[in-house]
Amino acid sequence: MQHVSNFLRRERNRQRTQPLLPRALNEECGVFGIIGHDGDAAPIIALGLHALQHRGQEAAGITTYHEGQFYSDKHLGLVAEHFHGEEVLSKLKGNAGIGHTRYSTTGTGGLRNVQPLYADLDRGGIAIAHNGNLTNARTLRQQLISKGSIFHTTSDSELFVQLTALSRGLTMSDKVIDAARAVEGAYALTVLTRDALIGVRDPVGIRPLVLGKLGDAHVLASESCAFDLIGAEFIRDVEPGEVVICGRDGSLTSRRLTAEVKNPRPCIFELIYFARPNSFVDGESVYEIRKRLGRVLAEESPVEADIVSPIPDSGVPSAIGFAQASGIDYEMALIRSHYSGRTFIQPDQKIREMGVARKHSANMGVVKGKRVVLVDDSLVRGTTSKKIIEMIRDAGAKEVHLRIACPPITHPDFYGIDTPSKEELMAASHTVEEMRDIIGADSLSFLSLEGLYKALGKGPRDNLRPAFTDHCFTGDYPTPLSDMANTAEKIEQLSFLREAR
Amino acid sequence: MQHVSNFLRRERNRQRTQPLLPRALNEECGVFGIIGHDGDAAPIIALGLHALQHRGQEAAGITTYHEGQFYSDKHLGLVAEHFHGEEVLSKLKGNAGIGHTRYSTTGTGGLRNVQPLYADLDRGGIAIAHNGNLTNARTLRQQLISKGSIFHTTSDSELFVQLTALSRGLTMSDKVIDAARAVEGAYALTVLTRDALIGVRDPVGIRPLVLGKLGDAHVLASESCAFDLIGAEFIRDVEPGEVVICGRDGSLTSRRLTAEVKNPRPCIFELIYFARPNSFVDGESVYEIRKRLGRVLAEESPVEADIVSPIPDSGVPSAIGFAQASGIDYEMALIRSHYSGRTFIQPDQKIREMGVARKHSANMGVVKGKRVVLVDDSLVRGTTSKKIIEMIRDAGAKEVHLRIACPPITHPDFYGIDTPSKEELMAASHTVEEMRDIIGADSLSFLSLEGLYKALGKGPRDNLRPAFTDHCFTGDYPTPLSDMANTAEKIEQLSFLREAR
Amino acid sequence: MQHVSNFLRRERNRQRTQPLLPRALNEECGVFGIIGHDGDAAPIIALGLHALQHRGQEAAGITTYHEGQFYSDKHLGLVAEHFHGEEVLSKLKGNAGIGHTRYSTTGTGGLRNVQPLYADLDRGGIAIAHNGNLTNARTLRQQLISKGSIFHTTSDSELFVQLTALSRGLTMSDKVIDAARAVEGAYALTVLTRDALIGVRDPVGIRPLVLGKLGDAHVLASESCAFDLIGAEFIRDVEPGEVVICGRDGSLTSRRLTAEVKNPRPCIFELIYFARPNSFVDGESVYEIRKRLGRVLAEESPVEADIVSPIPDSGVPSAIGFAQASGIDYEMALIRSHYSGRTFIQPDQKIREMGVARKHSANMGVVKGKRVVLVDDSLVRGTTSKKIIEMIRDAGAKEVHLRIACPPITHPDFYGIDTPSKEELMAASHTVEEMRDIIGADSLSFLSLEGLYKALGKGPRDNLRPAFTDHCFTGDYPTPLSDMANTAEKIEQLSFLREAR
Amino acid sequence: MQHVSNFLRRERNRQRTQPLLPRALNEECGVFGIIGHDGDAAPIIALGLHALQHRGQEAAGITTYHEGQFYSDKHLGLVAEHFHGEEVLSKLKGNAGIGHTRYSTTGTGGLRNVQPLYADLDRGGIAIAHNGNLTNARTLRQQLISKGSIFHTTSDSELFVQLTALSRGLTMSDKVIDAARAVEGAYALTVLTRDALIGVRDPVGIRPLVLGKLGDAHVLASESCAFDLIGAEFIRDVEPGEVVICGRDGSLTSRRLTAEVKNPRPCIFELIYFARPNSFVDGESVYEIRKRLGRVLAEESPVEADIVSPIPDSGVPSAIGFAQASGIDYEMALIRSHYSGRTFIQPDQKIREMGVARKHSANMGVVKGKRVVLVDDSLVRGTTSKKIIEMIRDAGAKEVHLRIACPPITHPDFYGIDTPSKEELMAASHTVEEMRDIIGADSLSFLSLEGLYKALGKGPRDNLRPAFTDHCFTGDYPTPLSDMANTAEKIEQLSFLREAR
Repeated sequence: MQHVSNFLRRERNRQRTQPLLPRALNEECGVFGIIGHDGDAAPIIALGLHALQHRGQEAAGITTYHEGQFYSDKHLGLVAEHFHGEEVLSKLKGNAGIGHTRYSTTGTGGLRNVQPLYADLDRGGIAIAHNGNLTNARTLRQQLISKGSIFHTTSDSELFVQLTALSRGLTMSDKVIDAARAVEGAYALTVLTRDALIGVRDPVGIRPLVLGKLGDAHVLASESCAFDLIGAEFIRDVEPGEVVICGRDGSLTSRRLTAEVKNPRPCIFELIYFARPNSFVDGESVYEIRKRLGRVLAEESPVEADIVSPIPDSGVPSAIGFAQASGIDYEMALIRSHYSGRTFIQPDQKIREMGVARKHSANMGVVKGKRVVLVDDSLVRGTTSKKIIEMIRDAGAKEVHLRIACPPITHPDFYGIDTPSKEELMAASHTVEEMRDIIGADSLSFLSLEGLYKALGKGPRDNLRPAFTDHCFTGDYPTPLSDMANTAEKIEQLSFLREAR
Repeated sequence: MQHVSNFLRRERNRQRTQPLLPRALNEECGVFGIIGHDGDAAPIIALGLHALQHRGQEAAGITTYHEGQFYSDKHLGLVAEHFHGEEVLSKLKGNAGIGHTRYSTTGTGGLRNVQPLYADLDRGGIAIAHNGNLTNARTLRQQLISKGSIFHTTSDSELFVQLTALSRGLTMSDKVIDAARAVEGAYALTVLTRDALIGVRDPVGIRPLVLGKLGDAHVLASESCAFDLIGAEFIRDVEPGEVVICGRDGSLTSRRLTAEVKNPRPCIFELIYFARPNSFVDGESVYEIRKRLGRVLAEESPVEADIVSPIPDSGVPSAIGFAQASGIDYEMALIRSHYSGRTFIQPDQKIREMGVARKHSANMGVVKGKRVVLVDDSLVRGTTSKKIIEMIRDAGAKEVHLRIACPPITHPDFYGIDTPSKEELMAASHTVEEMRDIIGADSLSFLSLEGLYKALGKGPRDNLRPAFTDHCFTGDYPTPLSDMANTAEKIEQLSFLREAR
Repeated sequence: MQHVSNFLRRERNRQRTQPLLPRALNEECGVFGIIGHDGDAAPIIALGLHALQHRGQEAAGITTYHEGQFYSDKHLGLVAEHFHGEEVLSKLKGNAGIGHTRYSTTGTGGLRNVQPLYADLDRGGIAIAHNGNLTNARTLRQQLISKGSIFHTTSDSELFVQLTALSRGLTMSDKVIDAARAVEGAYALTVLTRDALIGVRDPVGIRPLVLGKLGDAHVLASESCAFDLIGAEFIRDVEPGEVVICGRDGSLTSRRLTAEVKNPRPCIFELIYFARPNSFVDGESVYEIRKRLGRVLAEESPVEADIVSPIPDSGVPSAIGFAQASGIDYEMALIRSHYSGRTFIQPDQKIREMGVARKHSANMGVVKGKRVVLVDDSLVRGTTSKKIIEMIRDAGAKEVHLRIACPPITHPDFYGIDTPSKEELMAASHTVEEMRDIIGADSLSFLSLEGLYKALGKGPRDNLRPAFTDHCFTGDYPTPLSDMANTAEKIEQLSFLREAR
Repeated sequence: MQHVSNFLRRERNRQRTQPLLPRALNEECGVFGIIGHDGDAAPIIALGLHALQHRGQEAAGITTYHEGQFYSDKHLGLVAEHFHGEEVLSKLKGNAGIGHTRYSTTGTGGLRNVQPLYADLDRGGIAIAHNGNLTNARTLRQQLISKGSIFHTTSDSELFVQLTALSRGLTMSDKVIDAARAVEGAYALTVLTRDALIGVRDPVGIRPLVLGKLGDAHVLASESCAFDLIGAEFIRDVEPGEVVICGRDGSLTSRRLTAEVKNPRPCIFELIYFARPNSFVDGESVYEIRKRLGRVLAEESPVEADIVSPIPDSGVPSAIGFAQASGIDYEMALIRSHYSGRTFIQPDQKIREMGVARKHSANMGVVKGKRVVLVDDSLVRGTTSKKIIEMIRDAGAKEVHLRIACPPITHPDFYGIDTPSKEELMAASHTVEEMRDIIGADSLSFLSLEGLYKALGKGPRDNLRPAFTDHCFTGDYPTPLSDMANTAEKIEQLSFLREAR
């Protein structure tokens, strides 16, 4: 949700210098909502956000509603670190509420940028949680400020709140629709008012949003895995451009943001990378999709080897698929530590040069003297792969072959995925052979774009109306990029308050 | 600055149950500002706020400006607890800034309500610190919300920010003047923009504001004692209804809020109670004023006794005046602890019944067998006086006479002084004789209203154009009380977000 | 290391009520040491402890030595949460040091019980880190107190420190050997003096200890995986009953605790459960051993099924072994969350009844309509297995067969493994058929004791001189249990100081 | 109680660089104890320590006893910051207990050095709180270590615990007496066992200790002001060399440390400086004593002036005495801030050069054009006086005369008063005229030694058997200074553990 500007990128990069094995790609949010629950909403929301924790680990927030009053609590860190226990959850009163989990807290906002965002409107309060990123945020923000609006965050998500407050729409859902029509980019929203839980998905359907039921309560979530954790029933995906209004009275109303239906293009990275393996997206198991990616990859780029191993845990399903298609034994060439979460030991230069790794350890017992195929879901900067291959060789592997279950990533994202800048995307400036050389593999192959669409059952790609948002592989962005047109003027270059922390 | 509603009063009362010897009256803020300093502004502001610490102990904030960027830091607690040391202060960059120290953090806002408040306006950022309380805050707030403004605090001070943002004034000072003209009540403001430090005092001049120089820099503060601490030179009081604009270029411009000059009525409580003894108000030493109050009190209500003692530290100057006028020896019948600050031991009921006191101890060596005159600056609830007199008697005093260096307080304040509700004001419902009986003194006398004006050199009181805001003694409020007209509707009764802490 | 008394068990159980999916077995410590390093020891120790984090997650401590001064730092929580960054590590000066990571902080000690423990002796300071548990701690402690010793922890490990202080031995290693000879039970020690790093392993060799080199430095660790992380070379296991003295001058001396060599019986649970898969124990890869357990299990208890899945991550190697031996496809029927570490959302009763799980999620895409074999490394209470099987069935599995890669656990441990009491050990009071019924599996099989020894290459079991400490399966404890003889008198029943936290 | 070594002095000096106006002298402890109370002891102890807060502000601890178990809690900071509220106090169970408040936490110990100290002895637990300082601590400590004792603090007070543990005395009081007989120096102890509260005062009676009753409970405290706060009745001083044993059964037994009675010499600094004005010492009011010091000072060193003012608060009683004897008006030339406690704003060099003060402000209204006599209780380094005189002059005083109500301090203390080293004692190396010149006063006079003894009613001084411990003025130390004989060997030079904080 935060505008991807030079300033923020610098901030992020500064933070990224810490981890030795940086996370490659990060999506920036999960949203959740519930109304009409037979009991307190807050514990359910906390569990739902916990299930969506992989979508954002830096901060989480919950807002609930009870008898004329909204209650809110936000926290930096993991959901479960704060949102557990009677003491915290009992203060979030009411049987309706929304929640948000977020990746990035960089930028100038700190806790203020943590969602849900809230405003007192003329007709009562409104709280909004947003997954995605807008591409005309800067322009809109400047327009509103010139008319007297005061922004309190540096998040593009606040535009939804400000536009809703200014709307002359009669009902809350009218106001929310007015706001959504004014913006451009990617958004899946959960919105809480006194009377309803509202879900909104952008017309292109870039970010996912699913609808379910828990008893009589309606629930909304970024992914179906949140429903499994709370024992809710999956009903259906919210459609691209759809607004679902779940009334406090149990009613369900569907409205549309646009008259004509656009070509929906959900983000292909949700399938390849972000979504949990046990989620279902568009009726398909993510785990099975990834196994198919591994199978097609094995067909496209076979290799003579003794064992197939994932880079755990991201590569597990595609490695299983690769092993099954190739007939080579599946083994764990790498052991993943459970304790390498958000904090890292920062060793001095000398130790770093030892090639120390903390997230993965080579499993010498299984790789010594073997020809090893390593399978991962994607390759971004290549630094992690380089270190892992070195580790595997040090442990005695005879050959190391790297297989990536998606095409080369050549273009940055602007819709809420925290990709590095183009210069840092290894595939943007290197051939596959150059990359192989740099990371030190005996062979390196990517899944082809054709293979990708084939594995997803949507191939071959229709270049006029592609089935997915796939600009990271193709450069074919699904919306205008208004803010990016003028990179010289950024939100951060306005005189904005910097909190001295 | 917080609207004195039932909700807040309840909140405050809840907190007040803790201290055994509650603070009687509390003013709710000190403000400070500097521009053009030859060095960093933040350490100077921190020292200035420290000197104003008696005006508010619950929270403090500083906002500075440097090369297109505003920097802000806010903290619950005393100024010196947070705003010291290179690490904190060096982040507040720039040679211009404002600060605020505040009494109350109750209510629904927490740290969000701590000032300075900030907004990005069309023409750049603006930060505002406010001492005082508005009396039409509720009404204005509802009007602005209905037009699309989003409020982020529960503080009445935010109205200045919102009104400034909406103003069509060409310059920042035009905008600030537009905002000040729309409100009603008491306010002394320090305002920081990219180009200037602006000071504003309400047309009645209820709250004080003084102007000084530190080298080439202009400084503003609630009281002159802040200038002494930083070594600044006192120039003059900002006039009631005056707007002083201290430019970054060293210029000083004076404008007025109203065409005609109103009858200025500075708050008499600043002289009697709030201001530091070493401050000068309207050219007079507060210490000397209070000594005169004690002198006139000794003349009006003499008593045969062996010693005169203050209730320290508030009663010290008037007790010295009383002793000098009466010729009775000045002694310390009570020893004040230096360690009874903001945290208190909360003993169980049994201990409480022992009549335990922690702020003052009786000095048995000096009171045993003596007739004691105790002098204090004011009497609010009477609970502290009752306990102290009991203590003095237990220590062996033969007689205890209480002399109060101001008239009985019969009416609550709405301009930023945290008086208790009318029911809790002892003098609102009791005669002097009833009060004497309840607190257990051998005699009790208050300074008369006439004596008060006489000691202040402004007597007798001109009932049409009184020289001071003195409603606490007279009920004569200097402004309309719009919000109080309709006590049924309060800000807090709007559906407002409650942070779950 | 903490004496397993009723008191502590109660404390632990109280804490255990929180997690819904309790950890089944926990070992209580990892130890590490280094001397003669070409650089600061602290960052290396921190990395080594991080690699041993699976052996204890509740607290960690490091003690180093530099020019006549010992430096120590201890912290509750994970190693990486505290021991990273220049600021913390630079205070732990010197190129020699030891570290400890610990499971339990329950009991009366808090941070005081965290190791390494330290004492100033006549001949200089000594610091000790202990993995294991003593079985005559209570008796010894009472004897020493009656002679004037003052204990500062409730940990049995303090006996090593006290006995060392009282020893009349001439050298530090003499003193340490004196102390070790007086105790009974399990211990692997790393000891730091001014001149040497000393490693000690109990005569039965219950707990592991390995020796390595990092450049010219000698290193000691509980497991070889710590050497991999820091890039050290594995030299050999420290022998049961051996004392290795690594001098500051690079020398290495070996001494023995006992004249005659006892029958060494390393703890079989290290192989089955505790050690990391990438560690080598007695020259064998733990991962390969566990795969063999799975293979023999598949031979002993075959089943007709569609997929084999581990309960991740503990069951992964044996499930791979089972899948390879049986020819059934290996799949992930369960997805493990990375965010279910030490803090858990504590839902209310209603939510708990929903059967909510947070560590594992069923992978519906892969289990629907399938006959599933679940493989795990052990079964303790059975509660987790029951919930998981329920989850798999809810996700649509046709049959669920559970296979456990070790025999039924029927006896508690007293050597440092945090087993539940006998009543909570499911296999201590139920037949296999009863257990199958309770946990709701279609079939349940354990690896046989014969199969276990066979897979370990030491079979069949020599009942007179068994190759392993295997009392958890057999009740055959390798040492006397002096303290346990008199369960009525416990350390905690002495009048011991209780810190009021 | 911490040994005054070079190391610690360096540490303290380092910390002293922070405050601009350093505290001149600091005593290092208050002790308290109660047994047989009709209710919980902990809240009473907390109040008692709060009343003794002036004797030590850096840390506080409480240990109680209830049904076979001791309970302890210690905290850095003021008593009231931690020891209040049900949550904290209810964990300290029982109707008997002791407490300690302490000045210094410098040195190597941190929280470990905070008292009471505790040990499990053969016959049950014992807790000890110590006010004073031993002068043979180093020697004894080395002896005990060589016999196998393990020390856990760097405090000399731990010797009492270690010696008690090693004593072969039959009863607890026998053991405590054994321990006290082995040490040399100053000590007032409160000791808690299962059966009794024991009070011990060293044979010279350097540090004070008083006995009282609260209902049926016996209470012990460093000063009688603690009794006033809790409503207890003062019984008598504990005699020098006396051991009072207050039994759980209400009994009171008195024993003696030495057969022959020594010449008692209570510390004269308690009267002049440390004790609270409302305390009674040896039957005399401290406030009245100090007024007499001021009176004699006025007689010895009169001056023509317009006003007499204390340096508040320390100089208040002697200034009142001076004013009464001289007939000059008593005024407040300085206003003391209530908010300058333990944390200070640390301004940069430039601000420091402005001569900024934060504890005291000049009261310009009262000093302008006046001849001012400033009275203080003592003069140590002279830095504070210099700054204050400068401030008073800047505020317009015509003349400034400084009068000190005790003789020049020429020798350091070794009995628990935190005096600076000899080099920093201004009077140790300067004549009065030199001092006057440095601090910039128009005149400077000290009370003479004769005047001092006269004001105390014990004059003239008996040089063979002086009535007080007065070495700070005379160099006449009342005990051997064994440790000081060999300043080259200090406790800190042994290899002692340094906690890395």
